[in-house]
Amino acid sequence: MSSSKLTSGQRAVLRGLFPGDDYLERPEEACVYGTDASRWYAQPWAVVRPRSLDQVRELLTWAHREAVPIFPRARGTNVVAGCVPQGGGVVVSCLAMNQLTIREEDFTAEVGPGLVTGDFQNQVQVRRLYYPPDPASVRFSTIGGNAATCAGGMRAVKYGVTRDYILGIEAVLPGGEMIHTGSRTHKNVVGLDLTRLLVGSAGTLAFFTKLTLKLLPLPPAQATLMAGYPSLDTALAASRAVFRAGILPVAMELMPEEVLNCVAQVASPPWNTATKAVLLLKCDGRPEGLREELALIRSALEEHAPVFVEEGRDPEAEEQLWEARRLINPASFRLAPDKISEDVSLPRGKVAEGISGIRNIGRAHDLPILTFGHLGDGNIHVNIMYDAADENQRDHALQAREAVLELVLKLGGVLSGEHGLGLTKRGWLHRQVGPVERGLFSLIKRAFDPKGIMNPGKAY
Amino acid sequence: MSSSKLTSGQRAVLRGLFPGDDYLERPEEACVYGTDASRWYAQPWAVVRPRSLDQVRELLTWAHREAVPIFPRARGTNVVAGCVPQGGGVVVSCLAMNQLTIREEDFTAEVGPGLVTGDFQNQVQVRRLYYPPDPASVRFSTIGGNAATCAGGMRAVKYGVTRDYILGIEAVLPGGEMIHTGSRTHKNVVGLDLTRLLVGSAGTLAFFTKLTLKLLPLPPAQATLMAGYPSLDTALAASRAVFRAGILPVAMELMPEEVLNCVAQVASPPWNTATKAVLLLKCDGRPEGLREELALIRSALEEHAPVFVEEGRDPEAEEQLWEARRLINPASFRLAPDKISEDVSLPRGKVAEGISGIRNIGRAHDLPILTFGHLGDGNIHVNIMYDAADENQRDHALQAREAVLELVLKLGGVLSGEHGLGLTKRGWLHRQVGPVERGLFSLIKRAFDPKGIMNPGKAY
Repeated sequence: MSSSKLTSGQRAVLRGLFPGDDYLERPEEACVYGTDASRWYAQPWAVVRPRSLDQVRELLTWAHREAVPIFPRARGTNVVAGCVPQGGGVVVSCLAMNQLTIREEDFTAEVGPGLVTGDFQNQVQVRRLYYPPDPASVRFSTIGGNAATCAGGMRAVKYGVTRDYILGIEAVLPGGEMIHTGSRTHKNVVGLDLTRLLVGSAGTLAFFTKLTLKLLPLPPAQATLMAGYPSLDTALAASRAVFRAGILPVAMELMPEEVLNCVAQVASPPWNTATKAVLLLKCDGRPEGLREELALIRSALEEHAPVFVEEGRDPEAEEQLWEARRLINPASFRLAPDKISEDVSLPRGKVAEGISGIRNIGRAHDLPILTFGHLGDGNIHVNIMYDAADENQRDHALQAREAVLELVLKLGGVLSGEHGLGLTKRGWLHRQVGPVERGLFSLIKRAFDPKGIMNPGKAY
Repeated sequence: MSSSKLTSGQRAVLRGLFPGDDYLERPEEACVYGTDASRWYAQPWAVVRPRSLDQVRELLTWAHREAVPIFPRARGTNVVAGCVPQGGGVVVSCLAMNQLTIREEDFTAEVGPGLVTGDFQNQVQVRRLYYPPDPASVRFSTIGGNAATCAGGMRAVKYGVTRDYILGIEAVLPGGEMIHTGSRTHKNVVGLDLTRLLVGSAGTLAFFTKLTLKLLPLPPAQATLMAGYPSLDTALAASRAVFRAGILPVAMELMPEEVLNCVAQVASPPWNTATKAVLLLKCDGRPEGLREELALIRSALEEHAPVFVEEGRDPEAEEQLWEARRLINPASFRLAPDKISEDVSLPRGKVAEGISGIRNIGRAHDLPILTFGHLGDGNIHVNIMYDAADENQRDHALQAREAVLELVLKLGGVLSGEHGLGLTKRGWLHRQVGPVERGLFSLIKRAFDPKGIMNPGKAY
């Protein structure tokens, strides 16, 4: 017995197209593909795993004809339920399409959507090449998923986001037609920029089968600086001083007091109770230039009377400093068993106002709110901690979330800097994006996917 | 008497909307707006110059209702006739919309489309901020024109192109509706990426009224290196050695023998007859780091036995080295009175094959062809020199162009790296872009501009 809404004829087609384990329909097997890092869930009608372009073309020809929803998926690290097959349909895992061709002379690579981004980075690094985008999930998420969501990461301050490294995309449209957007060249201004339209489209327009990525020469050296401050204001002033010194660090992260106290519950971090905010910076370059940059950053940081400054110049010492940043998520659950997590983005100059406003919201609703993240580009993560078993707290958490998002929009910010709206935040789209722009989204969607079968109900 | 195809009622509407000199209809005045740097020409029906957003909205409401073609225009530096009002219509100059707000704390600026890019760069530079895109026309062309064409430039090797610095666009659609795409934030993944779809759309989708640009801290120091080589092969090997040393220069330009001989006819350049190819590199950074980088580049360049290496460490010395590069265009007319100019882009690793193939094409057609440009990103300018008064030469020039473009596509390159296809090269679109992708272009065009009034007949 299958719980599938597919007819037995449709199931036979899929079984024929995807032999053996590449087709799953038993609920207890398919259910694994019904969720993602959001922990939302919907039961897939079936799961298929194409290994070739031809299989993808046949699948999308069939699905378009039969109007069967298609849910593209890679490693399911999406936190906004972008991979959840809400409403039912066929989940298509791209994990078997993980081919890789590195073209050293071109400073490009051609990559299957299922290749794990961290594995790809390791492969190019041994050739002294560099693929900068580093979402927190980099060791688990894939190039295809990163492209579908325009994944960001900490290095965006200096190096930009996934969009900036995608030169071209091979994809299949509903109906089975292939498209090749962009090119293998670093510059290309022929026709409309379909490549960047596809990046961040959350699987709603086409199924990616190959991505052409831009690579850089690998910077040979890197270092990390951590500085603690007696107040949030002095930390923010110090961060401005770094930029004003003409420095664009690779990463610039902020951890305010609430976060420091929380992390201190699970580790022995380098700060003491006099520290009310910590800046964490990463730089890279060649040895001499890096030394110069570190000295300049140090002097900018020291203008604002830090409680301490620590430097990590080798991988191990760097790792120790970054460990505190990574502990935020596990440590946060010491405050409450559940969280609502937002990744809002603010104009850089509005971060101070944003953080203090969010603190007030936390106080008003009597909930711990952790605010931290990518200060360098204004992309701030907001964790509203609560106990879902307590109805009153749940109500307050939802109200606090509403207040946070309102505040962010009022300050000229946006609802998401990295994760997208997926399914969990889609209801908020109209608060940021007007009806005319949304009308354009719909018309563009219809141009690629007239029957609306690609990841329906997601993003916009 | 007006040569306009507008009715007297339509002309009265425009005259009412654009008082005084902001409306032109006399052929001898309007004709100035009928051409651009391509030297193609078509007579405008009328020319208007909006000073406010409201005027643009009223104009596009009216033009959409009346189905009157609209030709957006700034300084007319487009070399592919992107500004030429082919078929007739109203030319809309955005030059009066040149407002500027610099948000230092955000590292952003809000800019009117009519602001000259070089003036903008100077304005941000005094605040120690930096807007990297530098098309050759930077002192004359505008932010609006640069955005409409996704202008490139020499600094693209390290810093990318115009697309990479546009965070948001305010624009008016045919029909008068406004859209706001993107945001003031550095990261934003909400909805489809309309911003990058508009960038490079050549005025065919919407009329830009304000652009939000991303700024960087200004690098305090820069320097230039010029190296001459006894052969093209050794020069290309040296360029590879620079990248292999882990260096991403700001710019890396190549001038082969034909170009050196040509420039030597109008100036006294630093090379002698033993020099068969010249590399020109620019780097920037902080003093120590820059010194280190220059030493590494020098050593990479010297691995391949250069005839000479010259360094420019102050603005004047740098200027002298770059002067040779700038003289290529004027000097080229010593070879023949007319030229067909292409700005093809090749995968970096195919540049050597491309240049030698183009040389063979020149020989086969007995025409001088100059090949030079942005080696660092593979964007190569090809000037086919001929005498338009000689019918045989004209035929051969057109055949040579055909052969060059064929070769480029065969090598995995693209028809244009910077200029776009405009009007003069639009006929080639189908050679690079397939029917399915062109179908998507048309559907997207229709979503923005259902009556096809925006810069009709251009680009795609």
